[in-house]
Amino acid sequence: MRDPMFTLTAGPTQTWPSVQAAMSGPIVYDYDPVFLERFARTERKVAELFRTSGDVVLMQGEAVLGLEAAARALVRPGMTAINLVSGVYAKWFGLWLAEYGANLVEVEVPYDEHVDPALVRQALADHPDAGLVAVVHSETPSGVLNPLREIAAIVRDHGALMVADVVSSLGGEELDFDGWGLDLCVAGPQKCLAGPPGMSLCAISDRCWDAIRDNPSAPRGSFLSLLDWKDRWIDGGRTAFPYTPSVVEVAGVEAACDVVLEMGLGRSIAIHRRAARAVREGVLAMGLELWARDAEFATSCVTSVRVPDGCDCLGTLAHIRERYGVMLSPGYGEIKERLFRLGHQGPGAASLNPVVALAALGRGLVDQEVPVRVGDGVEAALEVLFEDPAEVSS
Amino acid sequence: MRDPMFTLTAGPTQTWPSVQAAMSGPIVYDYDPVFLERFARTERKVAELFRTSGDVVLMQGEAVLGLEAAARALVRPGMTAINLVSGVYAKWFGLWLAEYGANLVEVEVPYDEHVDPALVRQALADHPDAGLVAVVHSETPSGVLNPLREIAAIVRDHGALMVADVVSSLGGEELDFDGWGLDLCVAGPQKCLAGPPGMSLCAISDRCWDAIRDNPSAPRGSFLSLLDWKDRWIDGGRTAFPYTPSVVEVAGVEAACDVVLEMGLGRSIAIHRRAARAVREGVLAMGLELWARDAEFATSCVTSVRVPDGCDCLGTLAHIRERYGVMLSPGYGEIKERLFRLGHQGPGAASLNPVVALAALGRGLVDQEVPVRVGDGVEAALEVLFEDPAEVSS
Amino acid sequence: MRDPMFTLTAGPTQTWPSVQAAMSGPIVYDYDPVFLERFARTERKVAELFRTSGDVVLMQGEAVLGLEAAARALVRPGMTAINLVSGVYAKWFGLWLAEYGANLVEVEVPYDEHVDPALVRQALADHPDAGLVAVVHSETPSGVLNPLREIAAIVRDHGALMVADVVSSLGGEELDFDGWGLDLCVAGPQKCLAGPPGMSLCAISDRCWDAIRDNPSAPRGSFLSLLDWKDRWIDGGRTAFPYTPSVVEVAGVEAACDVVLEMGLGRSIAIHRRAARAVREGVLAMGLELWARDAEFATSCVTSVRVPDGCDCLGTLAHIRERYGVMLSPGYGEIKERLFRLGHQGPGAASLNPVVALAALGRGLVDQEVPVRVGDGVEAALEVLFEDPAEVSS
Amino acid sequence: MRDPMFTLTAGPTQTWPSVQAAMSGPIVYDYDPVFLERFARTERKVAELFRTSGDVVLMQGEAVLGLEAAARALVRPGMTAINLVSGVYAKWFGLWLAEYGANLVEVEVPYDEHVDPALVRQALADHPDAGLVAVVHSETPSGVLNPLREIAAIVRDHGALMVADVVSSLGGEELDFDGWGLDLCVAGPQKCLAGPPGMSLCAISDRCWDAIRDNPSAPRGSFLSLLDWKDRWIDGGRTAFPYTPSVVEVAGVEAACDVVLEMGLGRSIAIHRRAARAVREGVLAMGLELWARDAEFATSCVTSVRVPDGCDCLGTLAHIRERYGVMLSPGYGEIKERLFRLGHQGPGAASLNPVVALAALGRGLVDQEVPVRVGDGVEAALEVLFEDPAEVSS
Repeated sequence: MRDPMFTLTAGPTQTWPSVQAAMSGPIVYDYDPVFLERFARTERKVAELFRTSGDVVLMQGEAVLGLEAAARALVRPGMTAINLVSGVYAKWFGLWLAEYGANLVEVEVPYDEHVDPALVRQALADHPDAGLVAVVHSETPSGVLNPLREIAAIVRDHGALMVADVVSSLGGEELDFDGWGLDLCVAGPQKCLAGPPGMSLCAISDRCWDAIRDNPSAPRGSFLSLLDWKDRWIDGGRTAFPYTPSVVEVAGVEAACDVVLEMGLGRSIAIHRRAARAVREGVLAMGLELWARDAEFATSCVTSVRVPDGCDCLGTLAHIRERYGVMLSPGYGEIKERLFRLGHQGPGAASLNPVVALAALGRGLVDQEVPVRVGDGVEAALEVLFEDPAEVSS
Repeated sequence: MRDPMFTLTAGPTQTWPSVQAAMSGPIVYDYDPVFLERFARTERKVAELFRTSGDVVLMQGEAVLGLEAAARALVRPGMTAINLVSGVYAKWFGLWLAEYGANLVEVEVPYDEHVDPALVRQALADHPDAGLVAVVHSETPSGVLNPLREIAAIVRDHGALMVADVVSSLGGEELDFDGWGLDLCVAGPQKCLAGPPGMSLCAISDRCWDAIRDNPSAPRGSFLSLLDWKDRWIDGGRTAFPYTPSVVEVAGVEAACDVVLEMGLGRSIAIHRRAARAVREGVLAMGLELWARDAEFATSCVTSVRVPDGCDCLGTLAHIRERYGVMLSPGYGEIKERLFRLGHQGPGAASLNPVVALAALGRGLVDQEVPVRVGDGVEAALEVLFEDPAEVSS
Repeated sequence: MRDPMFTLTAGPTQTWPSVQAAMSGPIVYDYDPVFLERFARTERKVAELFRTSGDVVLMQGEAVLGLEAAARALVRPGMTAINLVSGVYAKWFGLWLAEYGANLVEVEVPYDEHVDPALVRQALADHPDAGLVAVVHSETPSGVLNPLREIAAIVRDHGALMVADVVSSLGGEELDFDGWGLDLCVAGPQKCLAGPPGMSLCAISDRCWDAIRDNPSAPRGSFLSLLDWKDRWIDGGRTAFPYTPSVVEVAGVEAACDVVLEMGLGRSIAIHRRAARAVREGVLAMGLELWARDAEFATSCVTSVRVPDGCDCLGTLAHIRERYGVMLSPGYGEIKERLFRLGHQGPGAASLNPVVALAALGRGLVDQEVPVRVGDGVEAALEVLFEDPAEVSS
Repeated sequence: MRDPMFTLTAGPTQTWPSVQAAMSGPIVYDYDPVFLERFARTERKVAELFRTSGDVVLMQGEAVLGLEAAARALVRPGMTAINLVSGVYAKWFGLWLAEYGANLVEVEVPYDEHVDPALVRQALADHPDAGLVAVVHSETPSGVLNPLREIAAIVRDHGALMVADVVSSLGGEELDFDGWGLDLCVAGPQKCLAGPPGMSLCAISDRCWDAIRDNPSAPRGSFLSLLDWKDRWIDGGRTAFPYTPSVVEVAGVEAACDVVLEMGLGRSIAIHRRAARAVREGVLAMGLELWARDAEFATSCVTSVRVPDGCDCLGTLAHIRERYGVMLSPGYGEIKERLFRLGHQGPGAASLNPVVALAALGRGLVDQEVPVRVGDGVEAALEVLFEDPAEVSS
């Protein structure tokens, strides 16, 4: 099969030319002075995106590594951990919490709904000994956004650690690590930052480090160890790595950060929000149904569309890919074949890429004899894309 | 500081233009049909380098991930594991074996010597219940090569599993996974293959998989899990990944394999061997001392040179980097400042790059008032580089 | 201003990733054996696209160089030259013919019409001494295609030389240099081949070479000399260039040829034709007017759309570029502000890029308060893009 | 044959990674606002390298185009033109002057000597009506430098136009267009700037423009026309090109200028001078003979070495290329097989690349049984490369 012309998926997603150029450069030694400098510089840029003055750990594997590392670092056998579940990834995070010995309390809502902050307040009241609360900010598998700021405020008041999977929200949704009092966040570079996927971007508060240090179960001397990075790299004066960093990925991630910082973080978020709104309006105008019950809580990185009755989800996507050269995503996990996901991340959120995603899905459905008003969808999306994206405060 | 002009280190090392070009391409979705195909194709190419018809697992993090994954997968609490130690990396591997519960038996030799196969035979006689024997084929930190073929034959006779760290030998030293009866090997793409560093290339025998499956301690549902790759990806029909692969690294690793396979594996090994010999001859002709006591057991990926008395290792290397734009490596671990390491891997083993490494080190030492005969060293190296590299049988 | 996201212009146009990768490689010496080989190989590939077994000259500057070189090489003072004019470029070619001393006979039609072969027959009857007939196959400035095959047959019967500007038709329209009996064609790599612009691809028949050799006015020892290439490079055994070739452009042109040859020339033409038809249908469905009076004679590289009354052509295009990141073209020369040109060349003809061009133009006009049915246009285009492109016989 | 590992030729020469990255970017339309801006920006950067506040014309073909364009623009039939000849390129320039109708006066010296300014003074005294004096600053074919500053002062006093071929000196030799009162210079990007070859960088004084405008023979409406660039592009407000620029080459040339400007023009020249001195010292220490009779007048871009008696120049170079992967140049034109040329331009002048060139040539000669002291040559070169390059005033 030929290469895709458009990668408008849930991520990894198509990237910017400057990111490709950065990854085409010579491979350098990880202890070359220019690389040591680049690594530290990239940390600072990621910190700027997280809006934190605290530590950032760049773990050298895709975000799942950072999430597993976080769970292992924080869970002490017997501690109570509250896991807020509105989707597949949160469910999986709970499996880790339980596996590493937590007394797991799950607050679960249907996967097309967000977690109401009132539920969090109630759970903490019911489990006052809870040491941490975990949530997925943006559930990429279903496209549902949780109100992280409000949840974090409640958790902060209570005193538990607030752990958030922000894999697909960094750069596309408002996020203020220091301002909202978050303790540990893990983001992926291959979503709204449109970088290469092989890295976990972790922000960690000082009190979170204290908790990790106090935890005898926290891994050390392991690829999964946050402490190794803290001790060897960060506190060791940034001259020694616990293991060899992926020098090409680092170059790509720095370039991806540069794109967002040059455009302005607020503007990046606004562009993602506008793209999401354009696609939602387009989907509705085409006569299709959104997965997220409440558009206010739909994420800005992907839009999930319910697969019409009788329609073959995977077959339709394969047809769209083969015939039109456009790669879209199905759902993920247990809801894999119940939804189409249109990604709008990085360049995919800009220009007319949202129109391409809509036209591809719409026409692909028409080809399957699903009656869809493609033209109306495109017009509705263009109506939104015409608007100047208002800067978001962050 | 300006970018280096020559990266002739212990790895990551400078790469080939085709590898850079491969990593400059568009980022694709990991479930795009072209990527699924590329991933499977890359596995087969890596298998060809390992000379195995069995499984290859491409773990998505630098070789330390694969090594840790191997130790975790294989060690059952209480099992006896024999660890052959002739350098820093073997020592570290032993720490993992012990941490995961093995009854650790170490056969240790000085770090400038190789492990005599007779020692292995003796150890197995002393510990007939040993379930695995571990060795580092090529100790990059010191440049010492162990006789893996001979050691493996002994271990095979005994029935234990043969685990080998071949991080820096794949593509540069003879290695025959199936022919020598190896059970688990982990290689790095950033050494003799001159690829990007962020991947672990693992070859695993069927009986090794059986042992892993039988091990209740083997990780599942983890970034460290070999079984996840076996179950989800390999045995699942190669349609689902346990987590998101580093799509750019995969493109780079495939391109790196292509370079070696197009030139011929035997020729690649011969070129590395010739480069190592050229550098060794050059070092001796300059009046310096090799670290490896026995040139026959010096690796072909790096040449370790003893730092002359009174000479500041790190200062000299920093001067060479700053003044001449050439990046060389110091030692590693506890012998870090006792040796210079000249890398000759991938393009660094070809053409006159070995001369550049020698001239840089030689002149750098002259600048530090260490009397060195640079010209003699260069001439001696050229004498070797003139020879046509004889194909090695593999 | 930010970089464009879509370059859907009259050319230069956005290219393929493999072309970008080819141009990112190391710069080599023009007399390096690998470059000498590449240059000769590229000639053969270009010859395959022209469908000729004769000579191809790769002149090292954009197609205007090749066209001027052709005119200078062929015109003898006092010779009669018939110039068929249906657009701006043909008009310019006539200026050269006259300047170099030809007795110029022009057959001119309105710039939205093609040249009827009957006119050519008549002109040759009126001027039986005509030594050459010149035509532009595809008039990029207006999007009108001339029936080159039919015209060439008439010219061939008569015995004059048939010179054709195929700058924007090679790879996108049927063209058979040997089969149609053409004598000199000049193509540009930056149109349907989607390569870099800095080269003239010239095909030259043996009898055309004879005519050039017999012409005392034909330049020699000049950047404009076709004979220098013939004598030094082609007949000199392909070991010496008359001047330094643009080594990076050559790499890009070879890669661009590879894309077309791998996909099949017939398929490439079919894809361009389909894209052109999709855009034309889309334009009409939106309620706009095509420039070409007869859709049968609309080129497959660009579609020209009449600017609606009262609409500011350049302002609209600037708005589309700035707001939507899509670069389209205005007209060219004297009809610059009377038409919009939507390019569909190379990748721009594939996938949903034609939809992007239509949506951009349509919405841009809506923003200027020109009533346009964007959705209808997109639907009409998709209806055509759904069809499998039928292979064209070439 | 495999690709070269080192291109240390007379040019095109190996380039910088940032130049490769720039040429790997998307191809844009020449009328895209970002390209119009880039083109104008590149002009200003080239002007900074020429040290002129006047016009720069970027002609879109290799430097031969600019040189031919200059000759055509300036020569009026019957005018007296003094051509200073110390090498092959000057000789060729004289052919053009004569062809276009000049009364040609040549001041010729042997090709291993420079032109003494006294000869210029005498020639002008003998031909007081001379309208222009032409000289090649750095004769790349032989490696001889002419004292342009001194010659220009004499020409300036006399009132004739001073035309200089600075193809291989820009960025590597002192050059001050305004300060020295030059009138027309043509440089190539593929020499000391280490850019792609397909462009002519022309600096033109106001009084030179006046002379061109007054010349009825100056081409207009031609790929060879400087006036087209002046009228359409420069004086037309930089919104219209006379023909399509090579958009990829422009990106490469801008990036190449950036490297020099970031490092500092004075430092760039100093590095080239130092490299040339290192290679000359190396050549002499090896026991070989320089071509240039006077080292003071050896160029800093290439070093020409006399081929030892009985040695096969081309065979030796082919052997070096094939066996060691190093591409060096032979001579050019009539002295092609009488000299080896070692290029040291751009990256080839930096780091230990000069040592590579020496080691390759030296060992290649040894292989041909020419007795050469390679080690001594390398040591002598390193002795020079150890020195900090003193900034040159420009």
